[in-house]
Amino acid sequence: MDFKFLQELIVPAQTKIVMIIMDGLGGLPLEPGGKTELETAHTPNLDALAARSALGLTLPVGPGITPGSGPGHLGIFGYDPIQYEIGRGALEALGVDFELGPDDVAARGNFCSVDAAGVLTDRRAGRIPTDMNKELAKLLRTINIDGVEFFVETVKEHRFAFVMRGYGLADALTETDPQKTGVLPLPVCALKPDSEKAARLVNQFVEQARRLLAAYTPKHPANMILLRGFAKFPTVPTYPELFGLCAAAIAVNGMYRGVARLVGMNVLKVDGDTIADEFTTLEKNWNDFDFFYLHVKKTDTAGEAGDFSLKVRVIEEVDALMPRLTALKPDVVIVSGDHSSPALLKSHSWHPVPTLLYSKYVRADGIAEFGERACARGSLGVLPAKDVMPIALANAQRIAKFGA
Amino acid sequence: MDFKFLQELIVPAQTKIVMIIMDGLGGLPLEPGGKTELETAHTPNLDALAARSALGLTLPVGPGITPGSGPGHLGIFGYDPIQYEIGRGALEALGVDFELGPDDVAARGNFCSVDAAGVLTDRRAGRIPTDMNKELAKLLRTINIDGVEFFVETVKEHRFAFVMRGYGLADALTETDPQKTGVLPLPVCALKPDSEKAARLVNQFVEQARRLLAAYTPKHPANMILLRGFAKFPTVPTYPELFGLCAAAIAVNGMYRGVARLVGMNVLKVDGDTIADEFTTLEKNWNDFDFFYLHVKKTDTAGEAGDFSLKVRVIEEVDALMPRLTALKPDVVIVSGDHSSPALLKSHSWHPVPTLLYSKYVRADGIAEFGERACARGSLGVLPAKDVMPIALANAQRIAKFGA
Repeated sequence: MDFKFLQELIVPAQTKIVMIIMDGLGGLPLEPGGKTELETAHTPNLDALAARSALGLTLPVGPGITPGSGPGHLGIFGYDPIQYEIGRGALEALGVDFELGPDDVAARGNFCSVDAAGVLTDRRAGRIPTDMNKELAKLLRTINIDGVEFFVETVKEHRFAFVMRGYGLADALTETDPQKTGVLPLPVCALKPDSEKAARLVNQFVEQARRLLAAYTPKHPANMILLRGFAKFPTVPTYPELFGLCAAAIAVNGMYRGVARLVGMNVLKVDGDTIADEFTTLEKNWNDFDFFYLHVKKTDTAGEAGDFSLKVRVIEEVDALMPRLTALKPDVVIVSGDHSSPALLKSHSWHPVPTLLYSKYVRADGIAEFGERACARGSLGVLPAKDVMPIALANAQRIAKFGA
Repeated sequence: MDFKFLQELIVPAQTKIVMIIMDGLGGLPLEPGGKTELETAHTPNLDALAARSALGLTLPVGPGITPGSGPGHLGIFGYDPIQYEIGRGALEALGVDFELGPDDVAARGNFCSVDAAGVLTDRRAGRIPTDMNKELAKLLRTINIDGVEFFVETVKEHRFAFVMRGYGLADALTETDPQKTGVLPLPVCALKPDSEKAARLVNQFVEQARRLLAAYTPKHPANMILLRGFAKFPTVPTYPELFGLCAAAIAVNGMYRGVARLVGMNVLKVDGDTIADEFTTLEKNWNDFDFFYLHVKKTDTAGEAGDFSLKVRVIEEVDALMPRLTALKPDVVIVSGDHSSPALLKSHSWHPVPTLLYSKYVRADGIAEFGERACARGSLGVLPAKDVMPIALANAQRIAKFGA
């Protein structure tokens, strides 16, 4: 079902959809026969909502594929993450909450060390302190070539996001990082004719950066830079144009705010950084949007840290906040994740993600439990994550009949 | 999800995957409300493995489609059987364990009977005994035209596999079999210019065969041949190049050995022809491969014969051998079939195939039963058979994260 088909059926409505994404929600039992994090958590509110919902398991990218956060979010947002790939450079810029424009070319940057002959001796410049990175980034931001703007945004230690903003820049560029020491950094080459301008500018920037870093005092090991993963922000049809939704994003971390911005959501300011603060933001902005995406980061952080019981507690924290959501009387509620992050694996994983879809018009499964095995018995079955949004829109009475 | 996408995410690992294929595994109850063959079988070992596995039902080709053995195997091996079609001629050659090369053109052959005017009187030459077929095949193997080799391999009764090996041969050829008697056999015509050489050679071969058969004594009804289903072996991306797997096949019958060879598996020698002998082969070769395909033929033979209780017994025989597999401590185990063959239907069928996927990292459904209805409740859902391999590879930790 392509977007054009769906788009033509979209009709306006006064309904509101809320999508709660617990990052890395899906889990695994620690012992064979045991319970997952979500199954272990005491979640009376989610269980009660589950009883009135359709349940299922979503595949963010495809069977067996472990998604990064970018593809995982694009999937649950309704997009095919293979078709709309977010390049590594663009992800790095999103991660520092940089507002990438459609013509910007972004890259991942490293401060590195070279010897007197320019030969690479340390690809990470001894992992310089973040503060030193910030100081050097400020220095590099002074570079301006032919009216093109360059942004250098500290990530941490030796890492930074690089963004080039100007007219006629394309991202089909080779990388300067040779991925090993004992050799010279590589020049950037254009892989397509339309990237020649960008290639020339990057090479000039790197040369100026080299001179500035070498001359800068006090003495520091970061006397050169490496750039890789050049990428523009992909162009995706946005929520307003695709779904007719005036959408808002409530997320604390830059990466998620960036992906939400990519799909045309209004990224709201959250006062504070707790999950409760995010729910407060939801309440405050309730009247102004049709769709809310609310992102909970700590489930994933706990999963990646291998902290089963912390992940359980974060899920319970979200559960305890659910009455504040239901009090708003949303028409459609989706509770899901962008991927699984089982504490057992201490990483993202390929396992399908437990998903709940509530509305007054959903054909409820009557399963009063929100968990992986409960969702496996649900009527949504195992479905591509991108199919959730059309079902949510239908339940929000925002899709007209097809054919007579 | 295309192969290129998957291929780029493949990473090496030390894990081992075993795929047990019980041919025609899926079944039907003999009476409404009854149990299938698999549900009837006493399978304590498979049931125990099921409890620690994810269960589902696989569609080898698509909904409602009854697969032949070739497409059924390609599906569970991870390929789209509609995209990678194995021609009938190639299948006939595989069936007699003929090692088809990439440039060989194969066809299905019949010995037939013609009258003095060359008009077809019996398309099967009265189903001559297999021994006579063997004698005549030997005779036809003496034909050599322009350095091109011809192979004539007895199948049974009037049927043989025909293979032509030489440079510059293509398979876009019409058939010589008019599919009715009372007419002359047809000449072979090239359907594309690049098949003209092959067409000329086949016509010369048929003419020489006619003369040799007419002159051969003692008297016999098989005085002519018919050829149909000209086909080269399709080129498919192989297990090593696609999945990074060093794969081995354990199968007694030619057809299955051939399809395994097609996808780049090493076809192992099995001493003996029992299922236990196949498990012995698995044990002996355990250290040398990453992936093992073990094929059990008799489930299908029993199904096609309409012998419900024999099919039950064969499944029980496999179940009794399962401890020998688990003793090897495989990382991932798939137990499935290439299609269904219900004894009730005495044939292959379109019914989805019960499938079990075990690994330490699988999200087990906790359903301690391996059967059609149990698998219908499993978390893999109803899935294309080709999706099983990516999930198995993920569980074997052989797929890297997609995106950041």
